[in-house]
Amino acid sequence: MNLILKGNICYNATPQTLRILEGGYLICEAGISKGAFAEIPEQYANLPVMDYGERLIIPGLCDIHVHAPQYAFRGLGMDLELLDWLNTYTFPEESKYSDLEYADKAYQFFVDDLKEGATTRAVVFGTIHNPATLLLMEKLEASGLITMVGKVNMDRNSPDILIEDSAVKSLADTEAWIRESMTRFKRTMPILTPRFTPTCSDALMDGLGRLQIKYKLPVQSHLSENHGEIAWVKELCPDAKCYGAAYDRHGLFGGAGVPTIMAHCVWSADMEEDLIEKNGVFVGHCPQSNMNLSSGIAPIRRFMNRGIRVGLGSDVAGGSQTSIFRAMSDAIQVSKLYWRLVEQKDAALTVPEAFYLGTRGGGSFFGKVGSFDSGYEFDALVMDDTDILSSKTLSVENRLERMIYLAGKDNVHAKYVKGKQVK
Amino acid sequence: MNLILKGNICYNATPQTLRILEGGYLICEAGISKGAFAEIPEQYANLPVMDYGERLIIPGLCDIHVHAPQYAFRGLGMDLELLDWLNTYTFPEESKYSDLEYADKAYQFFVDDLKEGATTRAVVFGTIHNPATLLLMEKLEASGLITMVGKVNMDRNSPDILIEDSAVKSLADTEAWIRESMTRFKRTMPILTPRFTPTCSDALMDGLGRLQIKYKLPVQSHLSENHGEIAWVKELCPDAKCYGAAYDRHGLFGGAGVPTIMAHCVWSADMEEDLIEKNGVFVGHCPQSNMNLSSGIAPIRRFMNRGIRVGLGSDVAGGSQTSIFRAMSDAIQVSKLYWRLVEQKDAALTVPEAFYLGTRGGGSFFGKVGSFDSGYEFDALVMDDTDILSSKTLSVENRLERMIYLAGKDNVHAKYVKGKQVK
Repeated sequence: MNLILKGNICYNATPQTLRILEGGYLICEAGISKGAFAEIPEQYANLPVMDYGERLIIPGLCDIHVHAPQYAFRGLGMDLELLDWLNTYTFPEESKYSDLEYADKAYQFFVDDLKEGATTRAVVFGTIHNPATLLLMEKLEASGLITMVGKVNMDRNSPDILIEDSAVKSLADTEAWIRESMTRFKRTMPILTPRFTPTCSDALMDGLGRLQIKYKLPVQSHLSENHGEIAWVKELCPDAKCYGAAYDRHGLFGGAGVPTIMAHCVWSADMEEDLIEKNGVFVGHCPQSNMNLSSGIAPIRRFMNRGIRVGLGSDVAGGSQTSIFRAMSDAIQVSKLYWRLVEQKDAALTVPEAFYLGTRGGGSFFGKVGSFDSGYEFDALVMDDTDILSSKTLSVENRLERMIYLAGKDNVHAKYVKGKQVK
Repeated sequence: MNLILKGNICYNATPQTLRILEGGYLICEAGISKGAFAEIPEQYANLPVMDYGERLIIPGLCDIHVHAPQYAFRGLGMDLELLDWLNTYTFPEESKYSDLEYADKAYQFFVDDLKEGATTRAVVFGTIHNPATLLLMEKLEASGLITMVGKVNMDRNSPDILIEDSAVKSLADTEAWIRESMTRFKRTMPILTPRFTPTCSDALMDGLGRLQIKYKLPVQSHLSENHGEIAWVKELCPDAKCYGAAYDRHGLFGGAGVPTIMAHCVWSADMEEDLIEKNGVFVGHCPQSNMNLSSGIAPIRRFMNRGIRVGLGSDVAGGSQTSIFRAMSDAIQVSKLYWRLVEQKDAALTVPEAFYLGTRGGGSFFGKVGSFDSGYEFDALVMDDTDILSSKTLSVENRLERMIYLAGKDNVHAKYVKGKQVK
């Protein structure tokens, strides 16, 4: 699809700065951005122009950590820390996805929400169940969003209602799911998803490492979210020098050819931070979830200073909202508390930085995604803020900032993913 | 107005517990609640019944700290701490309210938002300008909400564009405004509003103390929000034993006949906490604002443990949303970070506790407000959550919890204030 969008264009020039073009033109050719211009370049003069007037046009938002089956209980059960929360609320709910009829209804709500909102890309946890996970992928494929979805692996330390029979069975199911999803979907890619070290035996982790090599798949999991979790991993893996090393020794922790997201990293030890940096692991920063589950605040300023890759995750249902705008304002807010209460060397995140994290920061897990620079995949949101009334005259930058604090899904006027309009 | 509302009734039995009546009846006689019942008591059998079916019916929410003139820049200018934020964003904006035409437009947006949302009672800052403040009160009166509104006092340490000529002039204006508003409005009461110690001379504070006695007015101001502010007050008032004492010595800090709200109290010293408790001062807890302005986290669990009165404030535009549901979830979230990062003796707030703070906690500043117990003024919200889709079957308590995390103003189906339907 070749087209031009006209409007008030706003995206990151750098992680610290915005590029703003009022009444500018965004060129899309075959799903790829050719850049943002004040005037239409001559070679594109014949392309159709969608004129969005005074609306904002920004890159699509990327949610790099979200649990589809937990959408059903978003905003509920926030009274426990991680491990108790998993056993009390999460595992019983996820067990229901053995029932395809339940999964059909529940996943439709989740996908409809994602489609209507500002998210264009997402990296998603399913459950251990192949049929439900494939159904989720089918729905996401139909939505027009581009996503990575994981069938979850759990073969130990899990309740009877939500555990795989053995490492062998889990791996066989995983390979069958990989093969089927690779042939069936174009926009919906499989991602290896060991739930977290406590629920995955060494045999399972080893096998996932082999599948990673065989199918060259990306990996997602959880890391150093909570003190109780970290202590448990230490017990389970006494030889691993840190929690991250317990993934790394199975080839599931970044490095060449193993694109990896680790959600949270709230309490990563120095050596783990070094490993994250060295292996190019993406940190999935989920600030609201880290509040809701009393986990803490991840040191994102420090991560950014040392060049660790960071994106934002809604982490529904640890987080209550699918909105990555909300994740941006949450990220700014908790970074201020971190500065105030924990470490004054680490300055709070700025609006451009939070916007970067929610667009190109997380988007780069998908490749050239999250910017309008030439060569980037064309994911764009047209934002209408006319219902956010104010007596003030606002700049485009003001309006972007306000979006981060106030936008709801009704403010998403139109949405393009890789050049295709999906809303 | 006498009537009965039918629906799923939910309100606090105690600060820690909820009372829930599915398909229950709420009786309202002459604006006063006669209680919530499973069946209609015989003496009320002839009252008309509004049947709200499966919807939730909860007490109206009380915002005990909000700045009406700052609504225009909500979600903007979050990059500074308090004192710089005031000088850079707030004072220039508030100076515009010398222009009644500007005030008319800006205040209408604010009042419309409050009316459509879940707030039934609010304690509001205006600006130093009498005409604009009276206009704001007129609009609030017309909205049907019950509010207290303050013409702000500032006679020192303020920019030329937003300062009163002298203590004498400030006091004369204040008295004129008190007299006029006392005669003009029924639902909109004046409240004395020295902005904060740095902008109010001793002569002004003394005069306000005299006006307090003369007119028996309540008082609102700011207290111990930010380190820079506290250090400044120490410089300005070297004799005051704590910041709170700088109000107290002028008779503006609680005690018999001086109902007082002090917003923030993030960094109140022990002796100040003692004075707050002893004088029955209400703490206006504004968790989001305290994040946005990098102030910190107020120790609300400790306050509640020692019986200090606490209500919630949106503190727009230090806070970005007028929603007191949002203030409830923010309060829970920051209390978890406080527990995790500051003091493990202070357990996080629970859902019933946050709901209490946003209803009866703040409501009691208005008298018997914020409950459906017999004798309380009848403020009720009818909440419709049918657009918050879930595959789960939810209890009334679940649905209330979800509201706190997810409700927007569209979920407010109907709203009653002292028995009068206003939405």
